[in-house]
Amino acid sequence: MALTKKPVTGMKDILPGEMEIRDYVTSLVKETYGSYGFLPIETPCVEHIENLCSKQGGENEKLIFKILKRGEKLNLAQAQTEEDVADSGLRYDLTLPLSRYYACHANDLPMPFKALQMGSVWRADRPQKGRFRQFVQCDIDILGDATNLAEIELILATTTLLGRLDFHGFTVRINDRRILKAMAEYAGFDEADFDRIFIIVDKMDKIGLDGVESELKESGFGAAKVQKYCALFADNAGSCDVRKMQEMLGECLDPEVAGNLIMIMESVDAIKNTQFKLVFDPTLVRGMSYYTGTIFEISMDEFGSSVAGGGRYDDMVGRFSGQKTCACGFSICFERIITILLDQNFKVPTGKDKVAFLIEKGADAKRIAEVMKEADKLRQQGSRVLVTQMNKNKKFQKEQLLRDGYSAENIRDFYNTEFKKS
Amino acid sequence: MALTKKPVTGMKDILPGEMEIRDYVTSLVKETYGSYGFLPIETPCVEHIENLCSKQGGENEKLIFKILKRGEKLNLAQAQTEEDVADSGLRYDLTLPLSRYYACHANDLPMPFKALQMGSVWRADRPQKGRFRQFVQCDIDILGDATNLAEIELILATTTLLGRLDFHGFTVRINDRRILKAMAEYAGFDEADFDRIFIIVDKMDKIGLDGVESELKESGFGAAKVQKYCALFADNAGSCDVRKMQEMLGECLDPEVAGNLIMIMESVDAIKNTQFKLVFDPTLVRGMSYYTGTIFEISMDEFGSSVAGGGRYDDMVGRFSGQKTCACGFSICFERIITILLDQNFKVPTGKDKVAFLIEKGADAKRIAEVMKEADKLRQQGSRVLVTQMNKNKKFQKEQLLRDGYSAENIRDFYNTEFKKS
Repeated sequence: MALTKKPVTGMKDILPGEMEIRDYVTSLVKETYGSYGFLPIETPCVEHIENLCSKQGGENEKLIFKILKRGEKLNLAQAQTEEDVADSGLRYDLTLPLSRYYACHANDLPMPFKALQMGSVWRADRPQKGRFRQFVQCDIDILGDATNLAEIELILATTTLLGRLDFHGFTVRINDRRILKAMAEYAGFDEADFDRIFIIVDKMDKIGLDGVESELKESGFGAAKVQKYCALFADNAGSCDVRKMQEMLGECLDPEVAGNLIMIMESVDAIKNTQFKLVFDPTLVRGMSYYTGTIFEISMDEFGSSVAGGGRYDDMVGRFSGQKTCACGFSICFERIITILLDQNFKVPTGKDKVAFLIEKGADAKRIAEVMKEADKLRQQGSRVLVTQMNKNKKFQKEQLLRDGYSAENIRDFYNTEFKKS
Repeated sequence: MALTKKPVTGMKDILPGEMEIRDYVTSLVKETYGSYGFLPIETPCVEHIENLCSKQGGENEKLIFKILKRGEKLNLAQAQTEEDVADSGLRYDLTLPLSRYYACHANDLPMPFKALQMGSVWRADRPQKGRFRQFVQCDIDILGDATNLAEIELILATTTLLGRLDFHGFTVRINDRRILKAMAEYAGFDEADFDRIFIIVDKMDKIGLDGVESELKESGFGAAKVQKYCALFADNAGSCDVRKMQEMLGECLDPEVAGNLIMIMESVDAIKNTQFKLVFDPTLVRGMSYYTGTIFEISMDEFGSSVAGGGRYDDMVGRFSGQKTCACGFSICFERIITILLDQNFKVPTGKDKVAFLIEKGADAKRIAEVMKEADKLRQQGSRVLVTQMNKNKKFQKEQLLRDGYSAENIRDFYNTEFKKS
């Protein structure tokens, strides 16, 4: 078969300019989250097929890259289903592997455990502009902490990081799955219909309250219930106040749930060191069905979609370990942030000179040693030094180096200057 | 199916202690190679199956994790071979994807191009202690430079990195595939037999010259040729001098090849800023058949196996692009280095205090804000601060924190100290 030059469909090669920004963001992530006591960990990119297909990943389970069995285990002649030929697959997120990891290693980890993960995940999505089938996720999670200190720390760490990346004017929207449910219950909907209803509510920012109301009616829900339900959003739209929501829902909402949310919001507002708005948003749904409590998302008006999201998922680790383990996580959209920085023509603040040393053709070992020693001195002082052979076409080479970010005074042609020997 | 807690066979979860060392080595790699002008890039972990199986990977091609086709492309009922069901696979090294990458993007890259890659690769090897099926490779390569400046820079950058990692007393062994070939030719062997012969020579450090001699004879090579061949190693064993080898081989070895190697060695010896031995080793083979010229390897007496290896492969990029492109690379054994550091009980030099703040149960938003603000101050000063709820069993919690690396004076119990309110 002929060789193929392009990367596989939907995945991308990363050029040096972008990679330097990715490395910069990565180091800022590690440093910032490290200062909050999050510890770096890693799981393999390959995960058991039975874990990946355990109905915790929602739609993502349809998008798994599955890996062929090997050796004697593979029996193609008798294979009928994908399960017969695949025993593992590439992870589609970092939360499921983290739950497996914690169930396996809890005895060797601090309690509570604050985990930082950065790693690639894969989804065989339809290829489209700006979305790739391999992309980096960046998650912080706190396991084994039932208190809302977890939520507060996650929100502070994430917003501090965004601030250090020079993102301003963003909004942290917060809700609780239990408030979502209480609202639907209050309106009289059946619990079996909740997920369908939430999928429609999730479109609020696109189709508005009127749109949600008509779509709910079109979906066959009774007009009275729909009206009662939508009134909750309308009455709360201006101020979006948790206390007001609590009053309206009355017995349908456990006061502890509302109190919990209020406390998180008041604490964060009192502590935050970065400028952002924190708002209660009863229309916030978050897709993943594994969330059990608080949910949050960060949006920026300038960029439309969200740049971070997360929430509490107290039941997932228990499915692996058999022991209930509280868990709460916040994930920044790494690729989205990189795209924004690229669009802004972001320059990595290196503080380092780029210097190019050109050596004439045919230089002997002694000459090369002279130049290289000079280069070594500058490197030890923190410069980035390129040593390369002088081209025949010196003008062309110089233009190229200027384009690559070497300033004219930092392109040193030793043949004509200090190192010239007669 | 039941969920599985352990990672998939042959792959490993990385605990925080090891991950901090990995992160430290990674940052040192990026910084050191960056100072030599190497630019970071990345290719997808998933590669075209036709590239992976193009006979450039030697034995590694038998160890590929293959990825199942998706959607309509997968026809299990009619599938007979693995090629029918798999269209891609996980990369088994970083050199093949780099060659594809350069063939695809050369127009957007500096010339010559100095690439730095760090990334996971996968091989379905038989699981064994200390070897994993997913592991990180760390390669630097110079593409488009035919001069031996490439070799000199690669050796200097790699040895500088090892020095900064506090590795001492290592030996850089260097050879040239063309010298290997000239020696076999001089002895009168057929070119068709060269690869078989080199596999035996490669065992020299384990079985000695006598072992190599008898194994060559047992493999059916004529005694006279074998003797003539082995004499080359014997006569050169003491000093391992390239000039002496040149004299012995006479017309069989192009003087330019010997001159090239001598110049690389003399230049490196004159420039090096790290203590190491650089020796010509005519028994150095390097497994990969794609090497075309210089080959090198770094070994450390204390650790038996090598910690880095590389060489020149001038024909590989051309197989993708149709244009001959010189290329030379050096790869450090990242996992080997991590294992050595772990065995040495290496501590990452962070220079950062670890501080734990304990908050009493039932603290209100105001209390939490007080403590968190205090934590924030320390974080901004560079400390790593954990804020967590006080356990009922304070003694147990304190012991646990001491074990996690918090010193006694840095465990702050606010209930009993400055923050206590009456």
